[in-house]
Amino acid sequence: MAGSSFGTIFKITTWGESHGKGLGVVVDGCPAGLPLCEEDIQKFLNRRKPGQSKYTTPRKEDDAIEILSGVFEGKTTGTPISMVVFNENQRSKDYSDIASYYRPGHADYTFDMKYGFRDYRGGGRSSGRETIGRVAAGAIAVKILNQLGITFTTYTKSIGPVNIKEENFDAAQISENPLYMPDAEAAENALAYLDACMAELNSSGGVVECVIKGVPVGIGDPVFEKLNANLAKAVMSIGAVKGFEIGDGFDVAKATGKNNNDAFRMRPDGSVTKATNHAGGISGGMSDGSNILLRATIKPTPSIASVQQTVNKSGEEIDVSIRGRHDPIIVPRAVVVVESMAAIAIVDAMFANMSARMDSIEKFYCNES
Amino acid sequence: MAGSSFGTIFKITTWGESHGKGLGVVVDGCPAGLPLCEEDIQKFLNRRKPGQSKYTTPRKEDDAIEILSGVFEGKTTGTPISMVVFNENQRSKDYSDIASYYRPGHADYTFDMKYGFRDYRGGGRSSGRETIGRVAAGAIAVKILNQLGITFTTYTKSIGPVNIKEENFDAAQISENPLYMPDAEAAENALAYLDACMAELNSSGGVVECVIKGVPVGIGDPVFEKLNANLAKAVMSIGAVKGFEIGDGFDVAKATGKNNNDAFRMRPDGSVTKATNHAGGISGGMSDGSNILLRATIKPTPSIASVQQTVNKSGEEIDVSIRGRHDPIIVPRAVVVVESMAAIAIVDAMFANMSARMDSIEKFYCNES
Amino acid sequence: MAGSSFGTIFKITTWGESHGKGLGVVVDGCPAGLPLCEEDIQKFLNRRKPGQSKYTTPRKEDDAIEILSGVFEGKTTGTPISMVVFNENQRSKDYSDIASYYRPGHADYTFDMKYGFRDYRGGGRSSGRETIGRVAAGAIAVKILNQLGITFTTYTKSIGPVNIKEENFDAAQISENPLYMPDAEAAENALAYLDACMAELNSSGGVVECVIKGVPVGIGDPVFEKLNANLAKAVMSIGAVKGFEIGDGFDVAKATGKNNNDAFRMRPDGSVTKATNHAGGISGGMSDGSNILLRATIKPTPSIASVQQTVNKSGEEIDVSIRGRHDPIIVPRAVVVVESMAAIAIVDAMFANMSARMDSIEKFYCNES
Amino acid sequence: MAGSSFGTIFKITTWGESHGKGLGVVVDGCPAGLPLCEEDIQKFLNRRKPGQSKYTTPRKEDDAIEILSGVFEGKTTGTPISMVVFNENQRSKDYSDIASYYRPGHADYTFDMKYGFRDYRGGGRSSGRETIGRVAAGAIAVKILNQLGITFTTYTKSIGPVNIKEENFDAAQISENPLYMPDAEAAENALAYLDACMAELNSSGGVVECVIKGVPVGIGDPVFEKLNANLAKAVMSIGAVKGFEIGDGFDVAKATGKNNNDAFRMRPDGSVTKATNHAGGISGGMSDGSNILLRATIKPTPSIASVQQTVNKSGEEIDVSIRGRHDPIIVPRAVVVVESMAAIAIVDAMFANMSARMDSIEKFYCNES
Repeated sequence: MAGSSFGTIFKITTWGESHGKGLGVVVDGCPAGLPLCEEDIQKFLNRRKPGQSKYTTPRKEDDAIEILSGVFEGKTTGTPISMVVFNENQRSKDYSDIASYYRPGHADYTFDMKYGFRDYRGGGRSSGRETIGRVAAGAIAVKILNQLGITFTTYTKSIGPVNIKEENFDAAQISENPLYMPDAEAAENALAYLDACMAELNSSGGVVECVIKGVPVGIGDPVFEKLNANLAKAVMSIGAVKGFEIGDGFDVAKATGKNNNDAFRMRPDGSVTKATNHAGGISGGMSDGSNILLRATIKPTPSIASVQQTVNKSGEEIDVSIRGRHDPIIVPRAVVVVESMAAIAIVDAMFANMSARMDSIEKFYCNES
Repeated sequence: MAGSSFGTIFKITTWGESHGKGLGVVVDGCPAGLPLCEEDIQKFLNRRKPGQSKYTTPRKEDDAIEILSGVFEGKTTGTPISMVVFNENQRSKDYSDIASYYRPGHADYTFDMKYGFRDYRGGGRSSGRETIGRVAAGAIAVKILNQLGITFTTYTKSIGPVNIKEENFDAAQISENPLYMPDAEAAENALAYLDACMAELNSSGGVVECVIKGVPVGIGDPVFEKLNANLAKAVMSIGAVKGFEIGDGFDVAKATGKNNNDAFRMRPDGSVTKATNHAGGISGGMSDGSNILLRATIKPTPSIASVQQTVNKSGEEIDVSIRGRHDPIIVPRAVVVVESMAAIAIVDAMFANMSARMDSIEKFYCNES
Repeated sequence: MAGSSFGTIFKITTWGESHGKGLGVVVDGCPAGLPLCEEDIQKFLNRRKPGQSKYTTPRKEDDAIEILSGVFEGKTTGTPISMVVFNENQRSKDYSDIASYYRPGHADYTFDMKYGFRDYRGGGRSSGRETIGRVAAGAIAVKILNQLGITFTTYTKSIGPVNIKEENFDAAQISENPLYMPDAEAAENALAYLDACMAELNSSGGVVECVIKGVPVGIGDPVFEKLNANLAKAVMSIGAVKGFEIGDGFDVAKATGKNNNDAFRMRPDGSVTKATNHAGGISGGMSDGSNILLRATIKPTPSIASVQQTVNKSGEEIDVSIRGRHDPIIVPRAVVVVESMAAIAIVDAMFANMSARMDSIEKFYCNES
Repeated sequence: MAGSSFGTIFKITTWGESHGKGLGVVVDGCPAGLPLCEEDIQKFLNRRKPGQSKYTTPRKEDDAIEILSGVFEGKTTGTPISMVVFNENQRSKDYSDIASYYRPGHADYTFDMKYGFRDYRGGGRSSGRETIGRVAAGAIAVKILNQLGITFTTYTKSIGPVNIKEENFDAAQISENPLYMPDAEAAENALAYLDACMAELNSSGGVVECVIKGVPVGIGDPVFEKLNANLAKAVMSIGAVKGFEIGDGFDVAKATGKNNNDAFRMRPDGSVTKATNHAGGISGGMSDGSNILLRATIKPTPSIASVQQTVNKSGEEIDVSIRGRHDPIIVPRAVVVVESMAAIAIVDAMFANMSARMDSIEKFYCNES
């Protein structure tokens, strides 16, 4: 079935394979009148670009975005925005051997079983390059939200055993280290840990955290279209994500009502706030005005140079070691992907929310003059 | 926006409020020819029924299901199956006081902000009774899957600090204790913990685990309609769920590629299997033939009798204690809800998968005779 | 597949069979704060109620609507509105004979082929009673639109050879004759024609026309979600409709650009208008501010008492005559169904339109105070 | 709202403007294993290509399709197929004058009102070039259907006053004249009529007819997803289409039950057929095994060189004559667009139909071995 679209009112459709002609996305339902240029998109894509340090793949990729439609005289027109990154570095021969067997931790086997065969070049559609479309669309979603006063802070929270410390948290640090960690000391420790992983031909997992400020109260729809449910789908659809939580997340299992409930309080300006934010900014599936706080856990890079057991397409058990240059950690490059998917889900929910009340609708259509 | 439907091909639409006339669901896209009667549904609803022990609310509720359409001569007809539970026990007066303030941990505030007012009787649409429609639909989804050789084992994995132990795991125990725990000793300890919570006018969180056997390889669609993404949305849409994981879940953050990758192996019968199942039965968003393993973390019951701080609709800070009889734990009643939502997501994905390959489609339409 | 839902933001889901327990609809995505009571719905249902004249079936049906959810203290709450009409008059025995053969012009054969069997009682899901859910939902859609200054005039335009005459058009006449014709003389002639049909155990087709005033400019989305495309789907999904047109419709095939183009003109108040309205109020898939004009052609009632040729389930060719009391004309009862479906499509398009422009969105979310 | 996607399981998303960088489509949900190359698509695009005769625009357009993804080693992979036609002939200066006023019969005014401004170059998104994406996707849909034994015959049925005659019908003629008429004599008369139109700086409307053979019984879903409803939406979403009918269409308004009902009959081979096909191959919203017969009426080209009245953006009434080279008739180029949209709707319905029956599902998943 069609599985490459996400969103209802603000809808994105991605396409492309790792070593095909290119990868892209069509963003449909973007409102007219948003100033937009390729540089807005490129800044986001650069956050996922490899080659910046020895901890990310040294492959040279330009990943230059082209906007093909939907923008006129510097502004979005309300029609679909088609964007593409053409692949320049198609070294198909490097991948010819993996055509014959199933790499552990990869989707080779399930693709073959579902479709009868697969584009085996560089992982094809299940490559990490599939996220190019997500991030290009996410750049637009974040820009829309920024114009509405909503901001994102997204970063690596942990790598292997190394966690950021709350007391060291410094958002300015995020762009100062190749791991996107808001804690310089943790980043240093994590880099040492990754060095050890690489020495052992191994890789590491980690956690991405995203904090979203300024979402108005009431975004998200009760029952199945809860904001947390759509954020969960958005983020769990990213390859390598194995867990998702909102607010205190898995810790609530050990909490009690007394220490998990957030007391409502009044601000001096007469608005309502919460004394704490265990809920992570979402109550009953709707934003409650506090910061939205979500986390995604990312598995270790499956492509490792160590010898592993697997089977080939002839049904033989074999030993393999995945050649090529692979990141020992996916987490830093996933940071912008998590932010992008969260932003897309929130934009869609905010547009849907505009028809929640009859009085707003009447004001929209009748009180214009 | 319409937020009360879930699924694309197998689609459910729920409706109803805690203290309205009733609650129900329309199941559309159920295939024709499935034997179905009210008893099939009632068995599932009874698993979420309160009043079975002192740990669940002693309110008397019959929750008798009625099938209003879509079944003829004992079989589904392919047309929508409308099911309803009429509310018999509408004690609206008990809830008149909560109309004026926002209960901590509840959706009162967000409902009021989004819609301008709310049906405050018993939580209205955000009550736990909203799950009646999910479970009634889930009963059908599980029955369909059972006919295809797929089975569910769902249970309470932990309550507060009490976890089940792997060495004690006994599926037969699940229905033998009011907490649906597959470990008699853990259940006893958890009951003691809950007694302590109740004595302190407090409540506890916990974790539900669901193991699904027999899903064929290749179910789920790459990119946004990954099986894990839809399971995440399905389960995170259940009120009180704050975290979701597949397989090793959050533990993968600390894992390495060497110990997280599952080696492929050959079975004696020539089929492919995996030596381990860290992936939880899903690779690249598609089922891989191993057991699907998912977990949901459930927050402590927000309605507690302890005094709590909050605000009222006049903008005054007040102290409240939630009267009425409330479960000190939601987890046991959530077990069947998690199973239901997982089943609905899987049925939908299996139906979508039928058109994945041209050769299957040709066989379906051309080789019938 | 799920085929019983319509709409994206304002979504309806209907269910029920002619001789099952009842028929109903869930309306999801209705904004909060709309005053609504059962009488609002009943007025609409009464417009499709039989038994008002000898030209409609003399069966006694009360078709009393019950609202089961989504309304609190006289207003919609933003949660799904579930409505039901319980069947009181289930004379299944009358229909036992038709179980064995396929009535010409009915869906008996296609239902059996698709699903393997069918609920044969009174046509089951393909009965005209299926429109109860559409009309109940339509009553809400029309009420929303009325509050936004949009009004409907829907009527029978022709029956067999008898057309209304433009010079006789009198909207007040619509409710004065059993055929809902806005032309007293045409109604009289049509009644005479129907008498002749009945005498010959025959039935007649006709045309319904719907004029919608006050839709603001720009409703509908370019390309696939054009307003005319969704109106076409909405109306063509009504059983017995075989053709649909907007504005001059099929006549444009013989027109030329010179006489089909509508010249734009200025109104004294500085607003734009059109000198003519060949386009029927929709240009490029979006409303253009002129009246929206649509027509649906309805086939003759297929249930006729004349002897007809058909086949039975044993594969034998047989002669049948459909017993029971059937309208010789569907058209008058379809008038309110066409209006309902058009209204549902327009409400959905108006809600979708609210996020078309960035400046409107900013105003909605940022300039509230 | 997102309005550029069509279909549920087989889903297409188009993008692009007349004078932007290009136009394209993403086809998602195409089954794996379909042999596909650019020539398959190009053949279809060539059927809508202008420049073939004096009756179509003499602009030179290559409209060469490129497949960017979703095909590997000559077969579809099950992942999205992205296709693009880059615009080579962007003469923006020709269109600078039309930026200031609203062309009669075009979407200039509604675009400006909805979005605040528009890409005025060559009609932007509302240009006839928007159909490139539809036709490229339609080529795939038709290829899938051909493999399932389903074939299309689509042609111009009438132009202005000139109708094809049943007795002259010759399918081989369709590709022998520039008007795609299956009647050489009618084509000659129509060409003479168009010459007269052109001499008067005028244009003509007409009718496209599509006959689809071989669709199995039972395709389409009752109620809102009726096959005729989706065909109606698919075809009415094509710019310039003002009316749609199935089978006898608008003629049924004047028919009676006796002459409109199709009698069921037995074929010698024991299968069921119909003595006539007034229904146009669809009963109760499902295909009935007879040929599906649909017609779309197309308005005259709105761009005419005659002087017309309109208004400009400053609110002044002005006279304009549309310069540039425009077809005096859209109909012949719309033939392949109608076929494409019909094919897309049918493919989607056929995939949806695969889960209609429990026994088919069990066979699909359990009897594989």
